[in-house]
Amino acid sequence: MSSTYGDKIKISVFGESHGNGIGVVIDGLPAGEKIDMDKVLVQMSRRAPGNDKTATPRKEKDLPKILSGMLGDTLTGAPLCAVIENTNTRSADYNNLLAVPRPGHSDYTAFVKYKASNDIRGGGHFSGRITAPIVFAGAVIRQLLEKKGIKIAAHISSIGGVEDTPFNPLKLDDELDQKLNNARFAVIDDSVEQKMRDVVEDARMNLDSVGGTIECIVDGIDAGFGGPMFDGVEGVIAKAVFGVPAVKGIEFGKGFELANMRGSQSNDPFRYKDGKVVTETNNCGGILGGITNGMPILFKAVVKPTSSIAQKQKSVDLQKKENTDLEVHGRHDPCIVPRAVPVIEAVTAIAIINLL
Amino acid sequence: MSSTYGDKIKISVFGESHGNGIGVVIDGLPAGEKIDMDKVLVQMSRRAPGNDKTATPRKEKDLPKILSGMLGDTLTGAPLCAVIENTNTRSADYNNLLAVPRPGHSDYTAFVKYKASNDIRGGGHFSGRITAPIVFAGAVIRQLLEKKGIKIAAHISSIGGVEDTPFNPLKLDDELDQKLNNARFAVIDDSVEQKMRDVVEDARMNLDSVGGTIECIVDGIDAGFGGPMFDGVEGVIAKAVFGVPAVKGIEFGKGFELANMRGSQSNDPFRYKDGKVVTETNNCGGILGGITNGMPILFKAVVKPTSSIAQKQKSVDLQKKENTDLEVHGRHDPCIVPRAVPVIEAVTAIAIINLL
Amino acid sequence: MSSTYGDKIKISVFGESHGNGIGVVIDGLPAGEKIDMDKVLVQMSRRAPGNDKTATPRKEKDLPKILSGMLGDTLTGAPLCAVIENTNTRSADYNNLLAVPRPGHSDYTAFVKYKASNDIRGGGHFSGRITAPIVFAGAVIRQLLEKKGIKIAAHISSIGGVEDTPFNPLKLDDELDQKLNNARFAVIDDSVEQKMRDVVEDARMNLDSVGGTIECIVDGIDAGFGGPMFDGVEGVIAKAVFGVPAVKGIEFGKGFELANMRGSQSNDPFRYKDGKVVTETNNCGGILGGITNGMPILFKAVVKPTSSIAQKQKSVDLQKKENTDLEVHGRHDPCIVPRAVPVIEAVTAIAIINLL
Amino acid sequence: MSSTYGDKIKISVFGESHGNGIGVVIDGLPAGEKIDMDKVLVQMSRRAPGNDKTATPRKEKDLPKILSGMLGDTLTGAPLCAVIENTNTRSADYNNLLAVPRPGHSDYTAFVKYKASNDIRGGGHFSGRITAPIVFAGAVIRQLLEKKGIKIAAHISSIGGVEDTPFNPLKLDDELDQKLNNARFAVIDDSVEQKMRDVVEDARMNLDSVGGTIECIVDGIDAGFGGPMFDGVEGVIAKAVFGVPAVKGIEFGKGFELANMRGSQSNDPFRYKDGKVVTETNNCGGILGGITNGMPILFKAVVKPTSSIAQKQKSVDLQKKENTDLEVHGRHDPCIVPRAVPVIEAVTAIAIINLL
Repeated sequence: MSSTYGDKIKISVFGESHGNGIGVVIDGLPAGEKIDMDKVLVQMSRRAPGNDKTATPRKEKDLPKILSGMLGDTLTGAPLCAVIENTNTRSADYNNLLAVPRPGHSDYTAFVKYKASNDIRGGGHFSGRITAPIVFAGAVIRQLLEKKGIKIAAHISSIGGVEDTPFNPLKLDDELDQKLNNARFAVIDDSVEQKMRDVVEDARMNLDSVGGTIECIVDGIDAGFGGPMFDGVEGVIAKAVFGVPAVKGIEFGKGFELANMRGSQSNDPFRYKDGKVVTETNNCGGILGGITNGMPILFKAVVKPTSSIAQKQKSVDLQKKENTDLEVHGRHDPCIVPRAVPVIEAVTAIAIINLL
Repeated sequence: MSSTYGDKIKISVFGESHGNGIGVVIDGLPAGEKIDMDKVLVQMSRRAPGNDKTATPRKEKDLPKILSGMLGDTLTGAPLCAVIENTNTRSADYNNLLAVPRPGHSDYTAFVKYKASNDIRGGGHFSGRITAPIVFAGAVIRQLLEKKGIKIAAHISSIGGVEDTPFNPLKLDDELDQKLNNARFAVIDDSVEQKMRDVVEDARMNLDSVGGTIECIVDGIDAGFGGPMFDGVEGVIAKAVFGVPAVKGIEFGKGFELANMRGSQSNDPFRYKDGKVVTETNNCGGILGGITNGMPILFKAVVKPTSSIAQKQKSVDLQKKENTDLEVHGRHDPCIVPRAVPVIEAVTAIAIINLL
Repeated sequence: MSSTYGDKIKISVFGESHGNGIGVVIDGLPAGEKIDMDKVLVQMSRRAPGNDKTATPRKEKDLPKILSGMLGDTLTGAPLCAVIENTNTRSADYNNLLAVPRPGHSDYTAFVKYKASNDIRGGGHFSGRITAPIVFAGAVIRQLLEKKGIKIAAHISSIGGVEDTPFNPLKLDDELDQKLNNARFAVIDDSVEQKMRDVVEDARMNLDSVGGTIECIVDGIDAGFGGPMFDGVEGVIAKAVFGVPAVKGIEFGKGFELANMRGSQSNDPFRYKDGKVVTETNNCGGILGGITNGMPILFKAVVKPTSSIAQKQKSVDLQKKENTDLEVHGRHDPCIVPRAVPVIEAVTAIAIINLL
Repeated sequence: MSSTYGDKIKISVFGESHGNGIGVVIDGLPAGEKIDMDKVLVQMSRRAPGNDKTATPRKEKDLPKILSGMLGDTLTGAPLCAVIENTNTRSADYNNLLAVPRPGHSDYTAFVKYKASNDIRGGGHFSGRITAPIVFAGAVIRQLLEKKGIKIAAHISSIGGVEDTPFNPLKLDDELDQKLNNARFAVIDDSVEQKMRDVVEDARMNLDSVGGTIECIVDGIDAGFGGPMFDGVEGVIAKAVFGVPAVKGIEFGKGFELANMRGSQSNDPFRYKDGKVVTETNNCGGILGGITNGMPILFKAVVKPTSSIAQKQKSVDLQKKENTDLEVHGRHDPCIVPRAVPVIEAVTAIAIINLL
C-alpha cells in the first residue's frame, strides 16, 4: 500500500500532519519546460486554510522548497522534490484521541493497520494537510497540460443541498476558467455563494459540518486517449479522485441519472462541426468505451461532511475496551468542499497527464 | 494502455468479440488450492446471453478450456489461462458499422485510437462479451475469498426507476447470499422483478434500451486493509468496476446523499459488540480513510442504457466525412443490468483479493 | 510473483510443459502494423527442439494459434494472444521426480514454493519449453523494431571453452545480421562450429552436459533512451535476460574485464563522424549513465550446463526425508546454448521496445 | 523513466549533486518497527567521501533529516522521507563541462536525454552522491531483514587484478559479517588491503583510475522466494544492482565460469543436514529456477574504473560541433570500489525485502 500514483509521471506523497515536513516527489517530468512558480503558489493558496470563513482559522505558510528537479525556473528532468515545513502545530489538542477514535475519521482504521504507531496527532498521514503537496504537483503538471491546450476547472457544485449552475458540458469558456482558477470559493453563479456560506455557518453554529459535491471539467483533450476495460479514462480518474480524503463517490457525464434514462436519450448523437466530429450532447462525459471522444471530460465527486465535529459523539475507548463518548476540541473546517476544489483539479491533472 | 488489472494477482484479459477466442490469464494464484469448476460455470451462466428475456437471443456456450495453471481441480501456482472459443457469430450484421459509428458506443473512439485496424465487428475488444473471461476469473477468485470468510453479493438495485430493497448495510445474510448468487435476475424483493421486466419490455417494444444501478456488498473482510490516498479501498474497487463496460459512476456507503447530510448524521458511531468494534450505521460503506473498518463494504454502480438500439439515430460517416443517419440491426440486450450483476461481483472479487 | 514483463508493452507468459497448451498475451501493441507470420515461424523453428544434433530428439510442432489481436496480418491494438497446443509429451518419464528433485533444476524450489501442486512433469512452468511463446513475442516485436531501424542479433560466444569471434562492437553488418538470424547454430566464425559440436558430443557421450555464453548486439538505437539508476538500460535488459532459464550472469561492453582496466583505457573517446557523435571504442556497451549513447548495445550472458543429466547424482527423497541417488531418464539437450540464442534475442527485443 | 524501485516497498530517490538537497522516500515500511539510527549512520559513513585515501578529499556531512514516517525511533507506517542537505559544493570546477562531455561519464547521454536542462554540475542526478540516500534506505531496510534472520555482507573482491579471498559460499560467519559491515575498506583477507591500495595509489599518481569487483552474500533467506522467469531472484537483484552507477556486470554463483563447466560439476548435490535440505556446493548462488533454495545468495558485480580522470582525453565540443581535447579538474576518487561496497549491500537489501 502506498501514497504513489501514476506510471508515466509518478507522484510520491509523504508527510504527516505534525511531523517535520510534508512534500512530494514527481518523477518523469520532461526536461527543459519552464514552470511559473507564482502560478503554483496561487493554486496552493486556494487550498490553504485560514483564507476563508468556511475554513479552519489556522494560519499556515505552505511555501514549498524545491530540493531537486529544477534549475532556476526550468525542469531538469530529474525527480522534482518539493518540501513544505510544518509550522504552527498544536498537538496538545489531539492527545486524548489516541485511545478514542473519532467517528467518521480514519483514527480507528489507522490504529488497526498501523498498530498505534501511526502519528495520530492531526490525522497523521491521513490529514487533509497532506493534500498541499498534491496541489503543488497538480499545479506544476497543469502548466504542462496548458501548453498542450488542456484546461482543467472545477467548482462547488453543491453544499448541503444548495446547488450551483452546472458547467456547459460542451465547452469550458476561457473567462470562466480564469474566474474559477483564481477563486477561493469557486462557484459559477455568484448568487449561490452566500446561500452556501449560510448553510456552512449554520452547521458551524450547531457544532456540526456539511458535505457537498464538486464538478470538474477537462477541456481540450483530443479523442483517442485511454483504453478499454481496466485502463479506461473513468477508472484512471477515479483512482486519482478517490485519493482525495472524504471523497465517497464519482460519476461521469450524466452519471447516476443514466439509471433512469433510455438509450435514445442518453446516446450522444455524432455530428460534424467545422470538419471535426463532435457530439450534440455530452451525457457520456467525454468518454466512450474508456477512451476520450474529444469532447470535454466531465465528472462530479461527492465530499462527505467533515468528520471532526465538536458535538458529543458515541465512540469506543480502545484501551479500556468499552463504549464511551467523545468530544473533539480543535480547529476544523465545518465544510471542506471549497478547499477541496483545487485538490480535485490537482489530482485530475495528475491523472490526465498519465493518460497522454 | 492495457487490459490488465492487479499487482498481487494479475488479470490479463484478451479477445475480440468475433475473433478465434477470448480468455484470461490469472497470474499469482496460490498453489494447492482446489477450485470447484461447477461453481465457476454457474457464475458464467448467470452472465451468458440467451438465458433470459431481458437479454439478447444469441446462444453461446461459454465453456472455458483450461490451458495451464491447474492439475485436475488444483491450482499449480503457474499462471492460470482459460480460453473460450468463439462460436455462433454473425459478423455480416456489423459490416456497415465500419464507417458509421454507433452513438454511445466505442466505435468512434476505437476508430480514432486504433486507426480502423480494430476488429469493429461486434465491438472488438470492447464487446460486452469480453466480460465472460472476467466472470471466470472472478468466480475462481471468489472461491479463494470464501475460504477466508469473505462473501460477495450484488443485486439489481434499480432499472429505469424501479427500485429494489437495498442491502442491510450491517450484514450479508447467508440465505440472501445463496439466493442472489444463483439468480439470473438478482433482486432482493421478488415483487419488483416483474415491474423491472415490464420496464425492459417497454423499452424493447420501443426499439429502445434502459439503464439501472447495481448494489454490491462484501461481507467478512477484516479491518485494516487498504491504505490512505491513492491506494484507498474506494480507488482500488473503482478502478476495477469502471473496467466493466457501461459503468459511469460509483458511490460508497451513502454516496452522493452525503452531499446533503450533516456530519452528525453521516458519522458512523463506534460501539463494542461481542468484544469487537463495530459501527451502528454504515454510511461510510465500510471504509474510513481508505481502509476497511471491519463492516461490510457497500457500493452502488450505475450502468448506462445499452447504446446499441434499433431506432434511427444521428451519426456521421467517417469515410464520406458527412452527417448521416444510422439504423442498427443486430441482436442486443435492451437492458444489460441483470447480466452485469455477476460481472460486478467478479471485478469486486478481483479488486478485493488484491487488497489482502 | 509473476511471468509478466514490461510496462509499455506487457508480456504475460502462461503454460506448463505438459499441460494443454502454452502461450503468451502481448498487451499494448500498436494498431495497424502488419506482421509477417512466416518470419515469426522462422524464429520459432530456431528454438524448436529436434532440429539439430545438439538438441533433444523430441519433435514438436510449435505452431502458434492466434486467438486475438490480429485481423488478417494486421495488429488490431487489442491484446495479442497466441497459443501453442502441447503434443508429443511422455509424462511417464518424469513420474519418479515428484519426490526426488534433480540437482541444478528447479524441482526442489518449485516444490517448496508451490507445495507439490506444481506440475513437475517436464519442469512445469519452469520448463525450457515455455520459452517458445517468448520467442513468438520477441519475433513479433522485432518486426516493429526493424521498422524503426533497430536490429538485434546474437551468436554462440562460447561453448565449453571453445570461443567464437566477437561482434564488431561499433556496427552490426547487414550480412552478418541475416546470417545469424536464420541460423540454427549461430556462430560468426564458421570454423568454430564443429569444435563446439565436438565438445557437446563429448559431453553427451559422457552422459553429461555443457554450458556456454551468448553475445548479443542491438544496433540502430538512438542516443537518449533509458534513464539513471533503477531504470538504466542495463537493468531493464538484465531483468529480461535473467527471465531466460539457465542464465546466471550478464555483462555489458567489456564487462568483468573492466575490473582490471584503467579509466584511461576503458573510457570511450568521443569523436564527430559524419556530423554525429560516436565513440572510438565501445567498452561501455553503448550505455552511459544508464542511457543509450547511440552506439550498439552489447552484452554477453552465461548459460549454465543443462541441469538434467543422465549420470547418477546425489539427491534427497523429500517424502522419505533421506539422502538418495537419482538417475534421470528422459530426453534432454546436452547443451541448450544454440537454442537459447533466439530466446536471448527475443527477450532483448521485449526489453528494448519497453525502453523506447 | 524513473528513480523508483520496488512494488512492495517502494524507494523513490531524488536530488542532484549540486541542488538544495538529496533524499529518498520509502513507501510501504511496516508500522511499529524500531530503527537504530546510529547503525544507519555507520552505513552512511562507510559510503561518505573523505574518510579514506582511496576516496575524494571532499568532506560532506551526509546527516539525513527525517521529515516523515518516524515518531521517535519507531516507523509509523507512513512514507519515510529522509533529506540530506547539500553543502560544500564547488560548482565552478564544472563550468566548462556543459559543452564538452567527459568520456565514460553520463554527461553526453544526459545532454541528449535532458536537452541541456540537466544540472550537469557534478553529474546532476547521475552523481555518485545520489547513492547516499540509497545507503540510508538500505540501512533502514537491513534492520528489518536482520529481525528476520537475514544478513547481508559484501567485500572488495578485486581491485585492478588484486583479488581478495572469496566468501565461503555455504555460510556467512557472524564475525566476518561484523567485520565487513563496519569496514571502510572491506576485505576478508587483511593482507590484500595494502596491495589494493598500492594499485589505487599508482592509478592516482598516473592521473588515472581503476576498477574492481564486489562480491555480496545474503545469508538466512529461506527457500521458496522469487519465481520463475521475469520475477526470478537473479533479475530482481540485477535490476537493483545495475541501479548503482558504474556497475557493468553481475553474475550469480559460479557465474561466467559456468560456461566452461560440465553439468556434473555445476549441479549442486542435495543432502539432508540437521533435517533440512541443503546443497553440498553452491555453484548456483542459492537460486534455482529463479527461486531461493535456502542456501546463501551469492553474486559478484563489476565496477568500472572511475570515468572522471585528470589525464587529457579526446572528446567533442557539443556547441562548436567539433572534436576537442578535455582536461578535467576537480576532486574524484581514483577508485570508487571501496565506497561502492555499502551501496551494493544497500540495493541488495532493497531488492531482498521486495522478494519476501
